[in-house]
Amino acid sequence: MKKFNEQEKVESVQGALALRGQIEEIVDGICEKGYTNIVWLGIGGTWASAQQATVHMKEKSAIETWAENAAEYLTTGNKRIGAGTIVITSSVTGNTIEVVEAVKKAQEASATVIGFIDAPEADLAKMVDHVVSYKQNEQLKFFMVADRFMRNAGEFADYEEMYQEFDQHLAQALVEVEKEAEPFAIEFAKKHWNDDLHYFVGAGNQWGATYSYAMCYWEEQLWIKTKSITSPEFFHGMFEIVTKETPVTVYLGEDKQRVLSERVANFLPRICGNYTFIDTKDYALEGISEKYRGEISHLVMHAVNNRIDVHMEDETKHPMEIRRYYRALEY
Amino acid sequence: MKKFNEQEKVESVQGALALRGQIEEIVDGICEKGYTNIVWLGIGGTWASAQQATVHMKEKSAIETWAENAAEYLTTGNKRIGAGTIVITSSVTGNTIEVVEAVKKAQEASATVIGFIDAPEADLAKMVDHVVSYKQNEQLKFFMVADRFMRNAGEFADYEEMYQEFDQHLAQALVEVEKEAEPFAIEFAKKHWNDDLHYFVGAGNQWGATYSYAMCYWEEQLWIKTKSITSPEFFHGMFEIVTKETPVTVYLGEDKQRVLSERVANFLPRICGNYTFIDTKDYALEGISEKYRGEISHLVMHAVNNRIDVHMEDETKHPMEIRRYYRALEY
Repeated sequence: MKKFNEQEKVESVQGALALRGQIEEIVDGICEKGYTNIVWLGIGGTWASAQQATVHMKEKSAIETWAENAAEYLTTGNKRIGAGTIVITSSVTGNTIEVVEAVKKAQEASATVIGFIDAPEADLAKMVDHVVSYKQNEQLKFFMVADRFMRNAGEFADYEEMYQEFDQHLAQALVEVEKEAEPFAIEFAKKHWNDDLHYFVGAGNQWGATYSYAMCYWEEQLWIKTKSITSPEFFHGMFEIVTKETPVTVYLGEDKQRVLSERVANFLPRICGNYTFIDTKDYALEGISEKYRGEISHLVMHAVNNRIDVHMEDETKHPMEIRRYYRALEY
Repeated sequence: MKKFNEQEKVESVQGALALRGQIEEIVDGICEKGYTNIVWLGIGGTWASAQQATVHMKEKSAIETWAENAAEYLTTGNKRIGAGTIVITSSVTGNTIEVVEAVKKAQEASATVIGFIDAPEADLAKMVDHVVSYKQNEQLKFFMVADRFMRNAGEFADYEEMYQEFDQHLAQALVEVEKEAEPFAIEFAKKHWNDDLHYFVGAGNQWGATYSYAMCYWEEQLWIKTKSITSPEFFHGMFEIVTKETPVTVYLGEDKQRVLSERVANFLPRICGNYTFIDTKDYALEGISEKYRGEISHLVMHAVNNRIDVHMEDETKHPMEIRRYYRALEY
C-alpha cells in the first residue's frame, strides 16, 4: 500500500488516546469550578470538526453547546460567550489568524479556552488557558473532551467501559479499515479523478467529514470542484440537478442520523447511475462493541478517505501539498 | 417589467407588517409567562430563514437561540428543547412532513410552537400553539418575532422607531429595489443562464439567502448546478478551484458580517474574471435610516433575486414551477 506506514498510524492514534489523562484533568478541574456552556470554535477544517463534536454531544447531552465559526464570532460576536463559557479549539500551526483573534476575544469576554495546538511553541499555545500539544487526531481529541464533559454531567454512564475498548482496539481497528478500504479506494479514484464536479452527501457526525472532505481535500488539495450537502437537505432542492451521470457519494455512518443518509441511498439509484455509498458498517472494527460503533463512525470514514486521498493524488498527478492561493497570496 | 405587479407586491409586504399586532400579542404573552430559549425550526428554505433569524438575533441578543433542522431534530433529538422552549416555524403548505413531525416532537417535549402557516386549513395550522396565517414574507415574519423578543428583553430600545419607519416605507422601498435592479438582472441572466456551475458567496444575514437562493431557486427551480459557501469559509479551501472563468456571485449585506464578504470581493478580481457583486448598499431604500439598513439587507437581496429569477426563467426557457423529483416521486 502506497503512503501507508502502519506502525506510525497505530502510534498516532494510540498517542492521541493517551492524552485522555491530561484531558480528564483539565475537564474535571473545569467541572469542579462549574461552567455555563461549551463552545467548539474553528474555521475551515476545525469548523467541520466543531460541528461533529456538537452533533455528537446532542445525541446524549442537555449541556448548552454549539459550533462557533471563528470569523463569524469576530464580526457578529456572541453574547452567550462569557464568564463560565468553555471554548475548545484546535490548530495545527497555531497561527490561523481567525482562530487566534477569536480566542483573544473569547478570553476578553472571560471565557476559558482549551486549545489543541499541535505546535507547542506557537503563540496560541501560550495564550490558551489549557493547552494540549499533540499532532493530528483533531476529531478524536474533541470527542474525548466532549465525552468527559458528558460523563461528568451524568450523561455517559459507560464512559470508562467505552474508552477501555478504544484504548485496546481503536488504533488497530482504524488501521485495518484503511487496509480493507484499499481495493475500493483504488477503483474509486480511477473512476472519479477527472470528475468535473463531485457531490458528497452526509449527515450527523458524518456531516463535518462530508463538508471538510469536499472542501479541504478535493477543492483545496486536489483542485476538483465539489458540492457537499446534508442528507435531509438533499431532498429540499439539490437533488433536482442529479441525473444519470452526476457523481454522488453518500457517507453512511452509524449514529442516529444514519436513517437520513439511508433515505438518500435508497432513492438515489432511481435517478442516478454514478453513485457511491461509503458505509462504515462495511468495516469490521474488531474489538469494538456494536453499541460504540456510532461513536467512531467519523473516524472510520476518515480512515477510508485517507486511502481515497492517496489514490486520487496518484491518479490526478496532483501533489496534495500545493496551493494556488492559500497562504500563498495576501487576501 | 415582466411578472411585476407593483401594487400586489406593496400590499403583500404591507400586509405582513400588519401582522405585527398579532405577533406582539403572542410574544408578549409568552414573555409574561417566561421562557428558556428560542428555536427556529425548518428544513430547506425555512431552514435558511431560520439561520437568518438566528444570526440576526446574535447581533444584539443574549437569549439562547439557534436554528434547528427539522430532520436532524427528528433523529438526533435535542435535549435543550423542552418546557420553556419557544419553537418558531413556517410552512407554506402546512404539510412539509419533517416540519409536521418535528412540531409534534417538540410539543411532546412540552415546547410551545408559533407557526406561520400560509394555509389556515392545514393540519399543522391547528396543531401549533399559536398560528399566524398570511402568505409569503417568511423572513419578515421571523424577524418581527425575533425583534419583539429582543425588545421585551430590553435589547432593542428603538424597536418602535424602527418599525414605524418600516410600516411607512419598507414596502415601497423594496418595490423600488426591484425596479432599480431590473437592468442588472437582465444582464446577469443573459450572461449566466447557461453556466455549468455557479458559485454564490455570502455571510451573516445574507447566508440564508445565499444558501437557499443557490439551492431552492437555481438548483430546484432552474436546474442549474450551484455551490454556496460562507464568505469566511471561502478562504479555507473553496477558493482554490476558482480561476479566470469561474462564475462567482458575492452577496454583500449591511450587517456586521459585511466585512467578511468585502474581503472576498476585494480579493476575487485578482483570480477571477467572471465575478458579480450584489451589494445592498447600491439600493436607495428611501425613508429607511442608515442605522436600520442592516436589519433588512436580506429583504433587499431577496428583492434583487426576484428580478434575477424572472429573467433567468426567461433566458433558460425553463418554467420555474416544474420539478423533476420533488413531491413528484416517492422517496
